[in-house]
Amino acid sequence: MTYCVAMRLREGLVFSADTRTNAGVDHLATFRKMHVFERRGERSIVLLTSGNLATSQCVISHLCERIQHEDQMNLYTVGSMFGAAQLIGDTINEVIARSELGQQTGGVDFGLNVLLGGQIAGERPRLFHIYPQGNFIEATEDTSYFQIGEVKYGKPILDRIINYETTINQASKCTLISFDSTIRSNLSVGMPIDFATYREDSFELHIERIAENDEYFQSLRQGWGSGLRKLFEQLP
Amino acid sequence: MTYCVAMRLREGLVFSADTRTNAGVDHLATFRKMHVFERRGERSIVLLTSGNLATSQCVISHLCERIQHEDQMNLYTVGSMFGAAQLIGDTINEVIARSELGQQTGGVDFGLNVLLGGQIAGERPRLFHIYPQGNFIEATEDTSYFQIGEVKYGKPILDRIINYETTINQASKCTLISFDSTIRSNLSVGMPIDFATYREDSFELHIERIAENDEYFQSLRQGWGSGLRKLFEQLP
Repeated sequence: MTYCVAMRLREGLVFSADTRTNAGVDHLATFRKMHVFERRGERSIVLLTSGNLATSQCVISHLCERIQHEDQMNLYTVGSMFGAAQLIGDTINEVIARSELGQQTGGVDFGLNVLLGGQIAGERPRLFHIYPQGNFIEATEDTSYFQIGEVKYGKPILDRIINYETTINQASKCTLISFDSTIRSNLSVGMPIDFATYREDSFELHIERIAENDEYFQSLRQGWGSGLRKLFEQLP
Repeated sequence: MTYCVAMRLREGLVFSADTRTNAGVDHLATFRKMHVFERRGERSIVLLTSGNLATSQCVISHLCERIQHEDQMNLYTVGSMFGAAQLIGDTINEVIARSELGQQTGGVDFGLNVLLGGQIAGERPRLFHIYPQGNFIEATEDTSYFQIGEVKYGKPILDRIINYETTINQASKCTLISFDSTIRSNLSVGMPIDFATYREDSFELHIERIAENDEYFQSLRQGWGSGLRKLFEQLP
C-alpha cells in the first residue's frame, strides 16, 4: 500500500509520499513514489504515484523516454500544468490498455492514481489528482489537499488543520503527524518518507528524505502522542 | 454507511453505534443498529450490525421470532456467548443464502457484520466479531476492541488510548472522540449515537442515545477540537 499527500497553499506546494510497496503482507519492498522533473528557474514538477507498481514504473519510464525526444511533447516542453496532466493521463491510459491485452489479467488491478503538482513559468502553482481512467481534477482554494493510497487514517488531522491559508511550515508538520497516524494503524505504509516543499515563483524544490530515526520526526511523534494522551485525560 | 465500536475491558463492555443508513448519498435514513436481549440478573446481550440493511433486519427478526418458540434454541436459552455467536452466524448464513436465490442479485452485497457482546451467568463477559460468512473471532486481552463499518477515520485515537485496563469511563470518552473524527470525515456516518455500557456481573446494561445537541458530546467535541489545534501549534 501507499500513502501520499499533496497540498496547494497560498505560499506554495507541499508533497509527501511513503516508500513501502507490498504484494500481500510478505512481499515488502522500498520504492520511490515521488518523481521530480525540474528545470531551475523555469519549471518544477512533482509526481506522486499510488497503485499498480508495474503500471507506475512503466508510466514514469515513458515520461522519461519522451524527454530524450525533443520533438515529442514531454514534461519539459508542455506549456502548462494542465498540459502535463493531460500527457500523464494519456500515458496511464496507454500503459493500462497494453497490460489488459495480456493473457493473465484475471483479477489484477492495473490502476494508478497520480498526484501532479508544480509550477511552469507563466502560471501559478497548480495541483492535480489524475485518476486510473486518465481524467483528473484540480485543487482549488476550497479544496487545498489531495491524498492517494491509504488515505483514511491520516485524514482527520488534515481536515482539522489544513486550509489554503496554512503556512508551508505548519502544513509540513501536519503532514508528518498525518503520516504518523497512518503508519501506526496500517502495516503496509512505512518509513522513510519522501518530502518536498515548493514556494511560489521560486522554481526550486526543497526535497528531503525523512528516515525512521530522524530527530525532528521522532520528537514530533513523541510530542504528539504524549500531548494527545494528556489532552484526552484533561477532558471531562 | 455505519460506524460501530465494541470493547471488552477488565471492568466490562462498551458498545456504540451510529444510526445513519444510506443507499448512495441521497437515500439517507435513521435506523437502530444496536439490538439488546436482556434478562436482568441472568444475561445481557448486545448486537451491533453493519452491512446490508435487509439482511440485518431479517437476521434480527429471525432471532426475535425464535424467542417466541421456547423449544427452539434462541438468545434467551443458549448456554454461552459462544453458542449465541454460532446461532447468529447460522442465521446470517440462512438469510444470505435465501437472498442469493433471487432473480435480481446482480452486484448486490448481501453481507452483514455483527459485533456480539455480553455476559451469560456462569461466564465472564465476552465479545465476538461475526463475519458475513457466519464464522467469528473473539476479543482477547491483547485485542480489546472491534470496529465494523467505516472504521478507519476513528481508529488512530482508539489505537493510542484503548487497552484492556482502560476504565469504562475513559473508554466511553474515547469512543465519542472516535465517533466525532469519523462523522467529520464521512458524511454517511451520522448522529444520534446509541451507547451502552456493561459492568461485569451486573447483568444490567446502561443504555442511552446521544443526540447531536447533547451537552457533554458538544463540550467534548469542542474541547478536543480546540485542544488538538493548541497542541498542534505548540509542537516545534
